[in-house]
Amino acid sequence: MYALKSLRAEDLESLRGNGEGQRKSQDRIYDYDVYNDLGAPDLSISLSRPVLGGEQHPYPRRCRTGRPMSTKDPLSETRTILPFYIPCDEDFSEIKTVQFGARTLYSVLHAVIPILKSALSGRDKFPLFTHIDLLFNEGVNVPPVEGGIASALPRLVKGVETAKAVIKFETPETLDRDKFSWFRDEEFCRQMLAGLNPCSIQLVTEWPLMSKLDPEIYGPPESAITKEIVQQEIGGCMTFDEALAQKKLFILDFHDLLLPYVNKVRQLEGTTLYGSRTLLFLTSSGTLRPVAIELTRPPSDGKPQWKHVYTPTWDATGAWLWKLAKAHVLSHDSAYHQLVSHWLRSHCVTEPYIIATNRHLSQMHPINRLLVPHFRYTMQINALARLALINAGGIIESTFAPGKYCMQLCSDAYDQLWRFDHEALPADLISRGLAVEDPTAPHGVKLAIEDYPFANDGLLIFDAIKQWAASYVNYYYPQANLVESDEELQAWWNDIRTVGHGDKKDEPWWPELKTQDDLIRIVSTIMWVCSGHHSAVNFGQYDFAGYFPNRPTIARTKMPDEDPTAEDWQTFLKRPEDVLLSCFPSQIQATQVMSVLDVLSSHSPDEEYIGANIEPAWEAEPAIKAAFEEFQGRLNQLEGIIDLRNSDPLLKNRSGAGLVPYQLLKPYSENGVTGKGVPNSISI
Amino acid sequence: MYALKSLRAEDLESLRGNGEGQRKSQDRIYDYDVYNDLGAPDLSISLSRPVLGGEQHPYPRRCRTGRPMSTKDPLSETRTILPFYIPCDEDFSEIKTVQFGARTLYSVLHAVIPILKSALSGRDKFPLFTHIDLLFNEGVNVPPVEGGIASALPRLVKGVETAKAVIKFETPETLDRDKFSWFRDEEFCRQMLAGLNPCSIQLVTEWPLMSKLDPEIYGPPESAITKEIVQQEIGGCMTFDEALAQKKLFILDFHDLLLPYVNKVRQLEGTTLYGSRTLLFLTSSGTLRPVAIELTRPPSDGKPQWKHVYTPTWDATGAWLWKLAKAHVLSHDSAYHQLVSHWLRSHCVTEPYIIATNRHLSQMHPINRLLVPHFRYTMQINALARLALINAGGIIESTFAPGKYCMQLCSDAYDQLWRFDHEALPADLISRGLAVEDPTAPHGVKLAIEDYPFANDGLLIFDAIKQWAASYVNYYYPQANLVESDEELQAWWNDIRTVGHGDKKDEPWWPELKTQDDLIRIVSTIMWVCSGHHSAVNFGQYDFAGYFPNRPTIARTKMPDEDPTAEDWQTFLKRPEDVLLSCFPSQIQATQVMSVLDVLSSHSPDEEYIGANIEPAWEAEPAIKAAFEEFQGRLNQLEGIIDLRNSDPLLKNRSGAGLVPYQLLKPYSENGVTGKGVPNSISI
Repeated sequence: MYALKSLRAEDLESLRGNGEGQRKSQDRIYDYDVYNDLGAPDLSISLSRPVLGGEQHPYPRRCRTGRPMSTKDPLSETRTILPFYIPCDEDFSEIKTVQFGARTLYSVLHAVIPILKSALSGRDKFPLFTHIDLLFNEGVNVPPVEGGIASALPRLVKGVETAKAVIKFETPETLDRDKFSWFRDEEFCRQMLAGLNPCSIQLVTEWPLMSKLDPEIYGPPESAITKEIVQQEIGGCMTFDEALAQKKLFILDFHDLLLPYVNKVRQLEGTTLYGSRTLLFLTSSGTLRPVAIELTRPPSDGKPQWKHVYTPTWDATGAWLWKLAKAHVLSHDSAYHQLVSHWLRSHCVTEPYIIATNRHLSQMHPINRLLVPHFRYTMQINALARLALINAGGIIESTFAPGKYCMQLCSDAYDQLWRFDHEALPADLISRGLAVEDPTAPHGVKLAIEDYPFANDGLLIFDAIKQWAASYVNYYYPQANLVESDEELQAWWNDIRTVGHGDKKDEPWWPELKTQDDLIRIVSTIMWVCSGHHSAVNFGQYDFAGYFPNRPTIARTKMPDEDPTAEDWQTFLKRPEDVLLSCFPSQIQATQVMSVLDVLSSHSPDEEYIGANIEPAWEAEPAIKAAFEEFQGRLNQLEGIIDLRNSDPLLKNRSGAGLVPYQLLKPYSENGVTGKGVPNSISI
Repeated sequence: MYALKSLRAEDLESLRGNGEGQRKSQDRIYDYDVYNDLGAPDLSISLSRPVLGGEQHPYPRRCRTGRPMSTKDPLSETRTILPFYIPCDEDFSEIKTVQFGARTLYSVLHAVIPILKSALSGRDKFPLFTHIDLLFNEGVNVPPVEGGIASALPRLVKGVETAKAVIKFETPETLDRDKFSWFRDEEFCRQMLAGLNPCSIQLVTEWPLMSKLDPEIYGPPESAITKEIVQQEIGGCMTFDEALAQKKLFILDFHDLLLPYVNKVRQLEGTTLYGSRTLLFLTSSGTLRPVAIELTRPPSDGKPQWKHVYTPTWDATGAWLWKLAKAHVLSHDSAYHQLVSHWLRSHCVTEPYIIATNRHLSQMHPINRLLVPHFRYTMQINALARLALINAGGIIESTFAPGKYCMQLCSDAYDQLWRFDHEALPADLISRGLAVEDPTAPHGVKLAIEDYPFANDGLLIFDAIKQWAASYVNYYYPQANLVESDEELQAWWNDIRTVGHGDKKDEPWWPELKTQDDLIRIVSTIMWVCSGHHSAVNFGQYDFAGYFPNRPTIARTKMPDEDPTAEDWQTFLKRPEDVLLSCFPSQIQATQVMSVLDVLSSHSPDEEYIGANIEPAWEAEPAIKAAFEEFQGRLNQLEGIIDLRNSDPLLKNRSGAGLVPYQLLKPYSENGVTGKGVPNSISI
């Protein structure tokens, strides 16, 4: 017994390493480091980036690779040793049939993107909307590509046999069902509840809307959205005061997060930025309608703060300004989605959990066994993201609204917004005012918007996870003191709080780990983040953003009514469609994003779905086996429940003419881009 | 003097003919007949049509041709003698350079349309919106066409040199400026004030909205549009009662005119029909917004009356139903526009004026000299319309909503709605509640909608015409008794009232012709109808209806929520775009209409614009010359005034992002499809 314990301790010690030396591919060492490898100062000073992690830019830790530091910037690690190290347990590159996702993503990043860039070089905006349609019908002609890559990407690369290849995109489901939904206001709102980023909308609880930023720097903090403006829009239904009191007003608020970047981003070439607030009203039929969009530019270059409120308007100029304001908000939402809801809140925060689990929980530790299925391929996909997605000049920076400040903004969001205790779905909903605690309600919460598909389906998954975790934890820890006395477990949690998420170690909201319930709460949160949360914000990416007018990643031109020249204004009046197309992503930006989203939205053939397969260790314990089977049963039921919900005409936020049914939280899926399926782990 | 008078009388007598015999092409005889030549019962009993003109189907008279009667239907004249007779003075077929319009239209009808029909035979709806776009980009491939026809239609027929010809459509200006305007609600309303049919909108003066039709046959007469529905839409701005009292509610009312045809049309293959009411609200910015659309089906086959109110709605199903309801209303408006505002109110009612003028006013009569420029080519184009547009199975019947009942409906409109005394623009506006008399206002009327482009520009033209007519009449009739004692003039007016428009001879509203002012009023009305009114409803046809989703001529399928089968409803939910495309005109219908509208919207190279050229007889009289030059000066000024109005951002109904400026009443134009230019006469 002592020998075993000592072996376990030794093994863990070797897994932790000593924080020194350069990691080799055959190493099996899980250690922490800051994000100091996103910039490439050796290549160009314009590619140097601040270190994320530490006091100035708080951030979760990544896996330490120990590469040499840059000669140009001693704080940055060099990026020349490829592939980026991950512990060999996480790396399956020899097994060809697995890790489909990462391999495909790598193919897109290293073969398709450069071809697209060269084929479209010199082109800026799409000249006409028809040319966007042609991406799906005719595709982009490119020089012949290597056959192997083409056959690995049959959805994307066509006609390799012929002299010329074609990169042709599949028609996204949303576009196929309804060519015009992207244009309509009610769909703009609905996607905040049942789209790709259903976790940013908040209840309005105070009025007037106020910024918390320093007025000295950012100008007057009061929103220009007045009671009168709201009243004019909703007055046929109720008064402003009734709407506020009855919790009918909601907001998509990207004001305080973006405003500090506006002047910086405006100095980048070919783009612009605003802070934004989008106010929404919950109608009597349970759907949202937009009330107003406010776009703000802080004082700059001696010019005072500029802010303007747009409303759905009954004249052509007003209608186009409204459309353009929506495009700006959507670009904010796209950036927030990709940087915060997706990367930060799932991929990035999970890496420390994985590192801590491997450092402190031996492989036979029950919590290791519970969590490891939820960590499959995550470090690998994260390393790939650092290599080519979130790095300086990578896909994210070159295609999303904040430009080179994308990752700094992500760090701000971590600093200001991320809390472990808000990551479980019910807590997330409560924190945004979208739910209140209610012990009598099915999931212990009462929703502010009853028909909120992400929440409705998510709560079922979250509850199933929590119940499975409860059975599991209570079996292995029949008494509370076993939790407190489990040294591995306590070290694990301590590592997560004080090292992996060490920049937040002094936050008062970290849960304690003393009782079974504490442990259940912690592991359920982690399991939900890796499964349900990630799936909800990932696998709909191509469906919702593949037709980029529905979700442009960037809005490159300022509003026509912000300090316009007479000529600019005339151009806008003459052909507003041109202004919208100029504002939208360029051809290169759009097609790069479409290619990447196509892969990110795809399930690999070896995908492991939540509750689908029992681990051998669980099967060996009858009580655990029974608990898992109950978990599995609940998830199987969910398939039918979700189908039923999607066919209920009263649930107008998920069911209606031309709507893609909300299936993102249906547990199971076939391979490919299906818009459904909840894998255990973040593997793409 | 006596000899001259006698010669005049003899000449007029020969011009009038004796009402007998078959007219030959070299004849110069102006006589009346009923519209008994639209049907072709000899070809097929399905092509027999009722006679228009007479007690049962009141209608203006056409020029008598005296062809043999049908053996199948003794009330119908045969159509086999070509071309249809018109007096030789009206026929310029030998002069190749003139009558461009009629020749081009003939080419389209006899060469292009059959080719389109054969090339598209077997196709029904457009499979995708993309295929509609392709009409403008790639066109329709057709077999080679005769070179002469192709070169006469360079806008339409391309690539005759090659083995295959292509019928390719020019992108209509509205689509080119704004690809999405057709989709938006505010543009749907705006076109009622500044589009192709700006003369149907009416003020709501009574509530509830009520049908005047027999409830025994058509069901309950009260509209289902309730105060509450209106209040919900406009409540943020004002109460319902305020809106009604302050003249803020307007209606596009096709209920009573269409309802009697609904059951009949529904028996035709491949189409449907509703009665419709569209309620609009005038916003504080002077633009209209739609409040509700009511579609009604009378009781039929034992089923009770069905009616449903659609409003702009904040869910996907509601938004699509609203879109489909708009398509139905637009098809009603298209049919009303073509049959009533265009054909009936300009082409058709004018033919009796021309006949009477030739029968009773000798060529040297001053009123003949005043009016004749306004009658150029009209009888010729009307004969062509009877030959191939409004005839049984012709373009109109096969592409517009009422199908084979188009011309009966046109007769109903003449019977129920047409009044000579309402045809002058100010009277027209007053009759619809869009203006009230106001002696202090510039044109003697105060508009209910201040920014009403058709009215704003039209009143300037109408006033110019009226002043020119006043100077002219007062010069030739310095005393009132000269009007009464002018036998030719009295006979002329008598003929118009009691013969040409004899089915309306007992109407109390016919103006008397006793004083100069009576004469001024009568001739101004005729001159306005032939020039301003016709231009306003004709030359924008391709711009506004060339992209048919903006103005479908027919809505072929019933609303998905009228007695749907479960399967139909699922089809709608699955892909509402398909339902809209099925509802829209078929490929053959759409392209036929587009081809015809392209020609109808075109100015010929020999077009004679209002006020452009002085007649020799006017030039010879210094007072008339001076009056004409003043007229000309006012029209020239109008060009600048209209440009100025179109650049005024406060006039949101004519000026704004992506709007085609309202130029339909700009007097002058280049050749071709320009969307402006007011010719003297109805020559196309």
